[in-house]
Amino acid sequence: MAHRRTLRVNYNKATNVVCVVGSELSVNLDRSAPPGSNFFSVKCTPNVKFELRPPLGESSQQALIPLSGNSVILISMSKASQSEREDKLSVYYYGSGSTSKVLGTAVLHLTAIEISLDVDADRDGIVEKNNPNKESWTWGPKGHGAILLVNCDSENIYNKSPDSEDPRKLKVADLKDMSLMVLRTRGPAELPEGYKLAMHISQGDAESVRVFRAASREVVKSSLHKIFSSFVKDYPLVLSSEVLSKKVPYLGGSAEMNFYVEGLRFPDKDFDGLITINLSLLQPVKAGIPETPIFTDKVVFRVSPWIMTPNTLQPVEVFVCSTSDNYQFLKGMKTLVTRCGYKLKICHEYLNRGDRWMQDELEFGYIDSPHHSFPVVLDSPRDGKLDVFPYDELLGPDFGYVTRVACRKDVSSLDSFGNLEVSPPVTVNGKKYPLGRILIGVAFPTATKGRNMTKVVQDFLWAQKVQEPVALFSDWLCVGHIDEFMTFVPAPDRKGFRLLLASPDAGYKLFRGLSNDGHGQAKMFDGVKKEVYVTVDDILRDENMRHENNYVQSCIDWNRDVLKRELGLDDDDIIDLPILFKLDDEDKSRAVAYYPDMVNMIVLGKNLGIPKPFGPKVNGRCALETEMCSLMEGLGLNCVFIDDFASYHELMGEVHCGSNVRRKPFDFKWWNLEL
Amino acid sequence: MAHRRTLRVNYNKATNVVCVVGSELSVNLDRSAPPGSNFFSVKCTPNVKFELRPPLGESSQQALIPLSGNSVILISMSKASQSEREDKLSVYYYGSGSTSKVLGTAVLHLTAIEISLDVDADRDGIVEKNNPNKESWTWGPKGHGAILLVNCDSENIYNKSPDSEDPRKLKVADLKDMSLMVLRTRGPAELPEGYKLAMHISQGDAESVRVFRAASREVVKSSLHKIFSSFVKDYPLVLSSEVLSKKVPYLGGSAEMNFYVEGLRFPDKDFDGLITINLSLLQPVKAGIPETPIFTDKVVFRVSPWIMTPNTLQPVEVFVCSTSDNYQFLKGMKTLVTRCGYKLKICHEYLNRGDRWMQDELEFGYIDSPHHSFPVVLDSPRDGKLDVFPYDELLGPDFGYVTRVACRKDVSSLDSFGNLEVSPPVTVNGKKYPLGRILIGVAFPTATKGRNMTKVVQDFLWAQKVQEPVALFSDWLCVGHIDEFMTFVPAPDRKGFRLLLASPDAGYKLFRGLSNDGHGQAKMFDGVKKEVYVTVDDILRDENMRHENNYVQSCIDWNRDVLKRELGLDDDDIIDLPILFKLDDEDKSRAVAYYPDMVNMIVLGKNLGIPKPFGPKVNGRCALETEMCSLMEGLGLNCVFIDDFASYHELMGEVHCGSNVRRKPFDFKWWNLEL
Repeated sequence: MAHRRTLRVNYNKATNVVCVVGSELSVNLDRSAPPGSNFFSVKCTPNVKFELRPPLGESSQQALIPLSGNSVILISMSKASQSEREDKLSVYYYGSGSTSKVLGTAVLHLTAIEISLDVDADRDGIVEKNNPNKESWTWGPKGHGAILLVNCDSENIYNKSPDSEDPRKLKVADLKDMSLMVLRTRGPAELPEGYKLAMHISQGDAESVRVFRAASREVVKSSLHKIFSSFVKDYPLVLSSEVLSKKVPYLGGSAEMNFYVEGLRFPDKDFDGLITINLSLLQPVKAGIPETPIFTDKVVFRVSPWIMTPNTLQPVEVFVCSTSDNYQFLKGMKTLVTRCGYKLKICHEYLNRGDRWMQDELEFGYIDSPHHSFPVVLDSPRDGKLDVFPYDELLGPDFGYVTRVACRKDVSSLDSFGNLEVSPPVTVNGKKYPLGRILIGVAFPTATKGRNMTKVVQDFLWAQKVQEPVALFSDWLCVGHIDEFMTFVPAPDRKGFRLLLASPDAGYKLFRGLSNDGHGQAKMFDGVKKEVYVTVDDILRDENMRHENNYVQSCIDWNRDVLKRELGLDDDDIIDLPILFKLDDEDKSRAVAYYPDMVNMIVLGKNLGIPKPFGPKVNGRCALETEMCSLMEGLGLNCVFIDDFASYHELMGEVHCGSNVRRKPFDFKWWNLEL
Repeated sequence: MAHRRTLRVNYNKATNVVCVVGSELSVNLDRSAPPGSNFFSVKCTPNVKFELRPPLGESSQQALIPLSGNSVILISMSKASQSEREDKLSVYYYGSGSTSKVLGTAVLHLTAIEISLDVDADRDGIVEKNNPNKESWTWGPKGHGAILLVNCDSENIYNKSPDSEDPRKLKVADLKDMSLMVLRTRGPAELPEGYKLAMHISQGDAESVRVFRAASREVVKSSLHKIFSSFVKDYPLVLSSEVLSKKVPYLGGSAEMNFYVEGLRFPDKDFDGLITINLSLLQPVKAGIPETPIFTDKVVFRVSPWIMTPNTLQPVEVFVCSTSDNYQFLKGMKTLVTRCGYKLKICHEYLNRGDRWMQDELEFGYIDSPHHSFPVVLDSPRDGKLDVFPYDELLGPDFGYVTRVACRKDVSSLDSFGNLEVSPPVTVNGKKYPLGRILIGVAFPTATKGRNMTKVVQDFLWAQKVQEPVALFSDWLCVGHIDEFMTFVPAPDRKGFRLLLASPDAGYKLFRGLSNDGHGQAKMFDGVKKEVYVTVDDILRDENMRHENNYVQSCIDWNRDVLKRELGLDDDDIIDLPILFKLDDEDKSRAVAYYPDMVNMIVLGKNLGIPKPFGPKVNGRCALETEMCSLMEGLGLNCVFIDDFASYHELMGEVHCGSNVRRKPFDFKWWNLEL
């Protein structure tokens, strides 16, 4: 239904009215008819259309029409006026039908204008004109509604901070991080006296969005201009948390004015991500009285969620730390990454201050819209000595930054992002997760005490919605990260990936086989642990170790059941890796890997960088490496074993904990999800 | 799909297992088979069911079955065990198919138990057994999911506070405000050693719910017991914000244990109203290691929203204030209310301290569930001298209390609840609102400054969801309440009601008619304003007044357009009442009623208590009263005019502002909404 506005008219007095094309004016003809009026007739210029309620019967429009208490005329205009009061509609009132004596005439002088606040509601990167769906937002390939990015990168390289934090520091380059919104108007050179246009937002939305306007129709595009001009002069701030409503100029004739919409907040527990921006035409009343909004056009945006990238996506950059003692590891990583053709970025000691756990301080993700996309690092509340790295080194032009601030006392080892992973795309009982599902580790929900991922981070992850999280049980591990017992690798068949799980049962099976085949005296840790000589048979004889590993297996099986259920996996989608653990009785019987934990690998396309396990040698080759290669071979994956024993394994981490990979975004667009 | 749990077995060692009826155990037979095993066979007692994966072909189950890496047996039990380890399943491993030499045997001793955490998921007031939909919540008559009340009444009459504020003050009478939840178990007299049941909730839900348990199977129901027993002894607290997980007893045999679930928070911006309660069976591991949850049953509740009652619902009690100067008004109200057969409750001066605006300090509503319902007063942040009334006088047994705390500086006259109303049920473009829509008044969204209803109250109202609010424009009035220009009355036809709107146009039309009929010299305010003599013609001659009223009419028309659009009304659903306003230039040209504002009435079924307008008399009868009666007569409504001139009208309020009505709840149940 067209927007309909009640209008009052006076007989024997002309009324000047502005009518927005596409809307209707509704005039009760009886309300201010001259006393004694019983009939009326209507005359108007061609650009004016009208309908009568109750509708006329078969009688001609020329005849006098009976006036009743509910006689209403609905007036609309078919195109914008070129000059003010270009059109006219007159209502003539009569006492009786038989005489033509006019008791009074109500005259409307009409000015028509076209107003359309436009956005890219069909998500093709172009701001179309007056999309009929621009006022609402729906998910899916047939969905509609515009998209906004949180301007969380920093165009400033020096003295940097996320751009959305301070509008005074914005640059012209920030425009590409914002969503274009166009105000299209058509009408006379000027609006009738006192009429104005105003853009406005609600109190609730104001903390999540800012709107800027291009000051002139054409901002000079010279590079000189870019250097010397001030952003706020060329793109004045229109709406913000301080200003919820502001007049915007009417340019006259057929005009377009560009606005730039900047997202300030990611979806969170108290913010669903939707923002409405309104544009109203205001009618003057009198001095001291607020103008009346007589027409409002609105558009809806949804802020892009923060999206994680699973191991199956193509790597772009690999990050590791350089420390005084990890030369061997760095060398292995450099060889692997270079061979794969990716960039290796090293965080040097002056920055990492000895903190080597590159995986734990941050998680790479991205935000996406039809007009722009960029990576965004989620900074963990872990805040180790690597704390400054995400902000100081990663944040930059087209590289965003987001964090959640937690109480120090609430932060535990489970807040490190080795405990935050994401699955490849899955389908679960018919429900599609084309961006996969986020996985985190927590204590058993039944545990009366236990470590947990802090609530502010969990709330943030759940609020992103597009990769609905699954909570696993990781509190059984000393370090407590899910990457200690699971990872995903690409596969050419089935669902496109395999879930790899650490498995003491698979470990014992391998060791038993070795013993049966006469390799019971083969030594573990050959070359790395000079003081210890542990043979395959030693391990098989150790009843206590077997018990501990049965417990570990039951913990992993618990997660296996959850993963099968929540990711829709079959047993054939899962590969068990031969890994043994031991319990640390000082730390409440929590577990650590007994030898380098091969599942804690880095996945770079078809190449896997795996912690060198230093297992028992058979015919000069490590039996664990042989088994690992044989398991991965069938998937077309290449295993590269990296010595992380002294510099990572003995500090309770491995290759994955000590590295991080920024990957290409999904081809699949998050707004095409069917939620 | 049945809940499936991965189980490890050892050959040559019996494993004791608890299996919950309805769930499956999944055992990979190859994982811990004796070395050299190539075949297996299975034997079990009748209560045990099993399936093999990959499934057996046509071959008999007696034959030896080939063992492969993915040989899995799925085990389930058909009924609860009467004693521990009553059932048994054995897997025999063989080296080759042709020999019957058994290499090893894996034996499972099985104990089956039935566990069901039950709620009233079908919303009939009875806790049924194991409703398949109890884990989710959907709206509508075909929807499902249990319902919870916020225990916001006070069973204590002295030293009172909403019961949910302090669990130590609970009484047995509080049980009826809580939702019954039953844990049904069946199995041996005791759980196998170390197994336990635990009830648990998430961190996020814990601030919104508490769970109590009946300490014994049957609490003595004598009145003596009620007086002397301690609630917390008979109904110990199980879960709260302090305790997220707690063991609960297993009673043995066929048993039911009652739990009582108490809601603590209304839906709000950061709480969607949904709460999940879990019950897990825990398997022992070893001392110092948390037990593993091997089966979890869950139920979902939604907290009842707070629901307002429109004028079309039957009144129960009418509330007014007694002040030193309102005897006349009180007398009129008493006559009206008594005649209608309702209760008049008078708030005396020692309590109201001269604050007569009973409408503004509070809003009556209710909460509802299949098992219980009670009225709940929403206390306004207005906090005038009537402030203590809702808490001190209304809060009590089966009378709840809720408020939202706002910053003093954010509170304006628009926070008074004369500015908070609700429409009767409506249908808008096919969308049904069977509980009506909440209406509030604010400034124009385009106003750069203006008064507003405070955000905490608006957030609360929107979060209730079932009466989706509509924001009207009321800042044009000095006092700024929507009840100054609109109300709803019941009607026998059309949508079951009419919207009454104050209308200066209707007022002028009436006065012009009077003048034309020779009553131009009839006096306004006859009998109440001795010093002023204003005639009908004086009013018609006053150009300035006409201008002011044109403005007022345009403000009301703006609201009329919004109401028509948002409530799906036609012009025929609206009746214009002849009321004139004047602008108060000291208060930014805001409006007040010129004579008593008849739309500000109290609606008691078919009887309307209307401010006596003191209009011009024609043949000894007030022409405004005559018009009002004639407009209402067609709807079968009876007008009673109450003199509120000196004690209310001159203080810028009228009958509605000075009264409040508690009404019966809707017959329609909020959970039957299609949202």
